[in-house]
This record gives sequence, structure tokens and C-alpha cells, in this order.
Amino acid sequence: MRIIELNESITDSNDKDAEALRSLLKAQGTFLINIMSSPGSGKTTLLERLITDLKEKHKIGVMEADIASDVDALRIEKLGAAAIQAHTDGMCHMDAGMTQRALMAMDSKDLDLVFLENVGNLICPAEFDTGANANVMILSVPEGDDKPLKYPLMFEKSDALVITKTDTMSYFDFDLEKCKERVLRLNPHISIFPVSALTGEGMDALEEWIEKHM
Amino acid sequence: MRIIELNESITDSNDKDAEALRSLLKAQGTFLINIMSSPGSGKTTLLERLITDLKEKHKIGVMEADIASDVDALRIEKLGAAAIQAHTDGMCHMDAGMTQRALMAMDSKDLDLVFLENVGNLICPAEFDTGANANVMILSVPEGDDKPLKYPLMFEKSDALVITKTDTMSYFDFDLEKCKERVLRLNPHISIFPVSALTGEGMDALEEWIEKHM
Repeated sequence: MRIIELNESITDSNDKDAEALRSLLKAQGTFLINIMSSPGSGKTTLLERLITDLKEKHKIGVMEADIASDVDALRIEKLGAAAIQAHTDGMCHMDAGMTQRALMAMDSKDLDLVFLENVGNLICPAEFDTGANANVMILSVPEGDDKPLKYPLMFEKSDALVITKTDTMSYFDFDLEKCKERVLRLNPHISIFPVSALTGEGMDALEEWIEKHM
Repeated sequence: MRIIELNESITDSNDKDAEALRSLLKAQGTFLINIMSSPGSGKTTLLERLITDLKEKHKIGVMEADIASDVDALRIEKLGAAAIQAHTDGMCHMDAGMTQRALMAMDSKDLDLVFLENVGNLICPAEFDTGANANVMILSVPEGDDKPLKYPLMFEKSDALVITKTDTMSYFDFDLEKCKERVLRLNPHISIFPVSALTGEGMDALEEWIEKHM
């Protein structure tokens, strides 16, 4: 597993870089999903489950973006998926240039499905198009159903919302219907998937959504 | 309850602004605690408990910093504490100038203990001295014991770490000793308080620490 040191891209336009990356992904037949959430929402655990379920059908790679450590990439590599750990030099988000450099360093040509696990942060990553084909955000049950009220941009920018750790629903005061209503008011086109990566509940619908969009 | 709209302070030096704010706080006899954490770690629930336990002995105020909504300030006001909701104009952190403006808007002269509930973000707030007298960070059990490895700066900058939601410990794979060891390796001077704001477990030690530092 490689570690790549990245820092902010200094270019004229992140949006232009993002479009260029999407053209490159199309040319090489790779579908890139940008996964965003708070720290500790269960991004890596969800990815472990997705890789286990989908690795017979697809060639999967994961780019782990963190300020420090390589714990997530090591977990992914154990499952047999291609993995690279990107260190963001203290940066709170990935931009399109950084994403492209990590993708090139991973040698993604043969991969048909790549996940970018963005830096754990519910604010800054929503402001930067990474060049991915789809934006998926995660909200975990312990974080609470009021998060759409407080971090609206992330919900507005996402194509799908995965509500994780649903197996802990009885332990926390989380109103799923109220949460969905708040999210759909911000973004009527978002697809919502309550799942437990631990028990597998709800994973089928999410995996179907991913394969439909590839 | 007032809502104040803030945006980034454009000054020569945030560090100078922070020192100026600390002088002002000293002059008026107010102790300011900056509380930082991920979204959904239980900052407001912890504050509700602290206010309930300490309001007979101290005049308490809370500045709630969020990108949007006023749900947190409304919760605080119900307990009879002074509260102001600061909206950060999309900003992912509070700086010293913003903190001072919020404090002035709340009319803090008579308050001896003020909490700043910073924007829910484990990265950016660690980079900006708000002018507070103490930095307290929260890590909730559901977020996982690996967070010190991934977000080291926040742990390095904090005077105290409150590990919240300890009542859910049996439900999550959280190794308290391993977590403490990782935190103390980054910051040997940090005080660590495992608490459950729900059951009250561990609150005494945290409240004693606060009063000792006032």
C-alpha cells in the first residue's frame, strides 16, 4: 500500500480540473464515487462491506484521504482491493487536482469502480468538486437527526445519503422520518439509504443504486 | 435569543486579536472555554448538563456557532443561561474577531463563565486561536478510538479532552485505554474526562477541572 503526500492544487479553476478528471475517468472506464461525512461516521466500515459484496463483479480501488495515519488504507488492502493513502498536508478537503494525483499514483486504469474516502469533515469537502461521478454522503445515527439543519450544503451537494449504524437506532434519539423530511426539503433529488454495515441491513438497495449509476 | 451574522475577520493577525480578547475577558472577569468536536459528538448535550450543574454557582453564557439553524441556542436558552446563536456565513471555524463580536453582542459583562460551542469540525477550528482561556475538545465513543491518529492537531491544541457518550461503550468497539494512550502521546499535558451527560457519570471531575481553572 502506497502513501502519497498531497497539497492544495494551485490552478486557475478547480471546476475545470474536475471536468478534465471526469473526461479522463470516462476514457478509461472508471466510475469514481466521492464519499463525504463527519469523522467517525463509519465510512471505512461501509467501504469494507461494499468491497466484500461487490469485489467478485468489479475491480475496486479506494483512495483514503486523511491528514495523518494509514489505518484506513491498511483495512481496505486486507480485503484485496487496490488502496492508496493520501495525506492532505493538513488540508480539510480534497480538490480535483489532488484527487487526480492520487488516482494516477494508484494506477487506476484497470479499475471500474473507485471510491474516494474524503477527509472526515461535514463542511469544507462540500465546497470542492473532486471530479467524481457521484457524491455520496454518510450520516451516522449517533450524530443525530438535526444535522441537515446545521450543515445544509453537504446535503444539497450529495446524490445519495447513506444513514449508517441503523443497528444502534434503539439506543439513540434519532427520528428517521424527520431526518428524511429535512434532507428532502434541502435536496428533493437525493436518494436515501438507511443501512447497517454490521448486520448488512439495507446494503442491497445501496449496491443496486451504485451499479445502476456506473 | 439573538442571532448574529458573522464573517471572517480581516485583520493583521488572529493571534494579536486573540490576546486582545483575553485581556478584555480578564478585565471583565469572564472565563471563556472554547469547545470543539466533530458534528454530533454531543457538545450541546454536555453543555446542557454543565449549565444545570453549575448555574447556581456561576453566571453562565453560551455562544453557539453554526453555519445555519438556531436549534442549539434554543436548547440552551430553555435552561435559563444567556445564549446567542452566531452564524458563520459558511465558515468552518471561529476566529478571535468573530468570537469577540459574538461576545459583545451577548453582553457578557456580568457573566463569569462563557462557553463557545465552535463549529462542528475536527480540523479547521484547531488552527485558529479564538481568544478563549481554555480549549476543550470532545470525542464521542461512537466516533472510534482511532481519531487521535487521524486528527492529531486538535488533540495537541486542547487543554482537556472529554470522551462523551460513555453509556454506549458496550455497544461500540471503543478501547478507552488505547485511546488515552494515543492522546497522551500527542499531548502529555491534556486532562482526559470520560463522561456520560445522560447518566451524569464522570461529570464531577470535569466540573471540578473547570472551576479550578476559572
